[in-house]
Amino acid sequence: MKVNEVAVGIDIGGTFTKFGLITRAGQVLWKDSIPTEANRPAELLFDRIFAVLNQFFSASPEKYRIRGVGIGAPNANHYTGRIENPPNLSWKSVDLVELVHQHEAQLLVDVTNDANAAALGEMIFGNARNIKDFILLTLGTGLGSGIIANGALIYGHDGFAGEMGHLTVVRDGRPCGCGRRGCLETYVSAPGIVRTVRELLAASKRESILDKIPAEKMESIDIYQAALIGDAIALEAFEVTGRILGETLSDAVAYLSPAAIFLSGGLAEAGDLIFKPAKAHMEKNLLPVFQNKVKILPSGLPQGEVALLGAAALIWHKLT
Amino acid sequence: MKVNEVAVGIDIGGTFTKFGLITRAGQVLWKDSIPTEANRPAELLFDRIFAVLNQFFSASPEKYRIRGVGIGAPNANHYTGRIENPPNLSWKSVDLVELVHQHEAQLLVDVTNDANAAALGEMIFGNARNIKDFILLTLGTGLGSGIIANGALIYGHDGFAGEMGHLTVVRDGRPCGCGRRGCLETYVSAPGIVRTVRELLAASKRESILDKIPAEKMESIDIYQAALIGDAIALEAFEVTGRILGETLSDAVAYLSPAAIFLSGGLAEAGDLIFKPAKAHMEKNLLPVFQNKVKILPSGLPQGEVALLGAAALIWHKLT
Repeated sequence: MKVNEVAVGIDIGGTFTKFGLITRAGQVLWKDSIPTEANRPAELLFDRIFAVLNQFFSASPEKYRIRGVGIGAPNANHYTGRIENPPNLSWKSVDLVELVHQHEAQLLVDVTNDANAAALGEMIFGNARNIKDFILLTLGTGLGSGIIANGALIYGHDGFAGEMGHLTVVRDGRPCGCGRRGCLETYVSAPGIVRTVRELLAASKRESILDKIPAEKMESIDIYQAALIGDAIALEAFEVTGRILGETLSDAVAYLSPAAIFLSGGLAEAGDLIFKPAKAHMEKNLLPVFQNKVKILPSGLPQGEVALLGAAALIWHKLT
Repeated sequence: MKVNEVAVGIDIGGTFTKFGLITRAGQVLWKDSIPTEANRPAELLFDRIFAVLNQFFSASPEKYRIRGVGIGAPNANHYTGRIENPPNLSWKSVDLVELVHQHEAQLLVDVTNDANAAALGEMIFGNARNIKDFILLTLGTGLGSGIIANGALIYGHDGFAGEMGHLTVVRDGRPCGCGRRGCLETYVSAPGIVRTVRELLAASKRESILDKIPAEKMESIDIYQAALIGDAIALEAFEVTGRILGETLSDAVAYLSPAAIFLSGGLAEAGDLIFKPAKAHMEKNLLPVFQNKVKILPSGLPQGEVALLGAAALIWHKLT
């Protein structure tokens, strides 16, 4: 009987935790999702995950061999195997490796944050398969980043490298959730572009269909749809967002000289509206030695499975 | 008879080329220097280097075994082994590995630019000996940088990573030799602090002994000496320079999370005058997770031998 070799990928989010069985080729053989119940101890979450997993295994006619468990979670640290003071979760400091080993003592376990995992997923399963130096940005409710150099994630000395969302792009700029000001993610993210539209509407007398949406209800998808029908404010908001992103990327290239920069997440789904100004402003600001060399590309992974595939990639990367 | 195992380090500069024999422990057993004669073919430079080397070997009572040749040179590329369009040298594109092999066919050869070599020298011989993640900045006539992550230099996909001197720190700021504006090195370098003093003098009515030095003759050492005796303009110039450096380093930490940042070169010799504001403004701007973790340290290598030791480190790093 054929044995399916799989990595277990676990993606711990503030509300839901997704997990699944992923082959070396990146095929998701099975997946499920349960509420994280972040106000209760992390131990209970892992009890429930393994209960569901074991139920699946005992009911399945096929055989599986688990090669390891990869976990992507906010503030998860590759070096310590722990989550430290995660935002949106009540756990203070949790040893994820230990929690897995309570269920399967010998398993290989690796953990990191979701953006780092997504970058590794892109390298192992996605559009970065032959690229050894690249950056991946996730443009969603925040801006996450994973940096790959010479085929490996850059973790830094403490496991927290790759916080490009908190680069200061405007001195004394917009207040950020981190307590500082002018962070990249206050401009280049789904809420960031909404803030840009609100500023543009306040400063302009131009008509815009976005003026009809109550400010606190506006979402980046509204801006996208307005841009598609030529709304000037929406188009300008994408131009501003892409300019700030592109200017930042030209600095990122000076640091790291990546072959490519991948954009994923909700805002990246806007396609040319964000890719074109980002590319144009990056090129305009690059040192000559870097010009016309660095690609800006979409992620090759299905958006709903990026985190799961990234978590599993932690394991398959170790086993290659 | 004892055989001295050495790496040959070669530091090619616009005017002089230095070379020497360096042991695995970083001892410079012998060194010499000849004019680069950059307007004549590179081949002739290597003929002259090996003539001097061979003369030394035949005259020496001791025996040497050369383990390899490391070369630091402007625009030298680790991946190709070539210098490409070096500034201050008339050579267009030169294969340095081939030039060495014309004299010693089997030797291990590695090349990179001077700042990358200096970073590697710091890791192999200097103050970064037990540090796997750090950045080294050379603050001289320009600002060079070498980035080490997980114990290895970050070269990027094309060999040109680590150009922190050309990060844009002031949008539409000071013109830079690279053709762009607002580059870090137009502020944080020996000529950069001179430009800052000239701006401060022009904008201020405060007395300063620096006002007595003709603008085009002013050097960073004059500003250092003025600061030591409490000249307000000189002190403010160091504060401004350190602030811009510190703000930039807080972004560098968000990318790379290094354990330490080393400052070397002429401007770093100013000690606390530059280290203190750099550290203070870096800490002030760091994301909380990085605060009070990252050291800013002086280089542990003698300034006159940094480039030579760095070039030799290319070889000893490969052999460890």
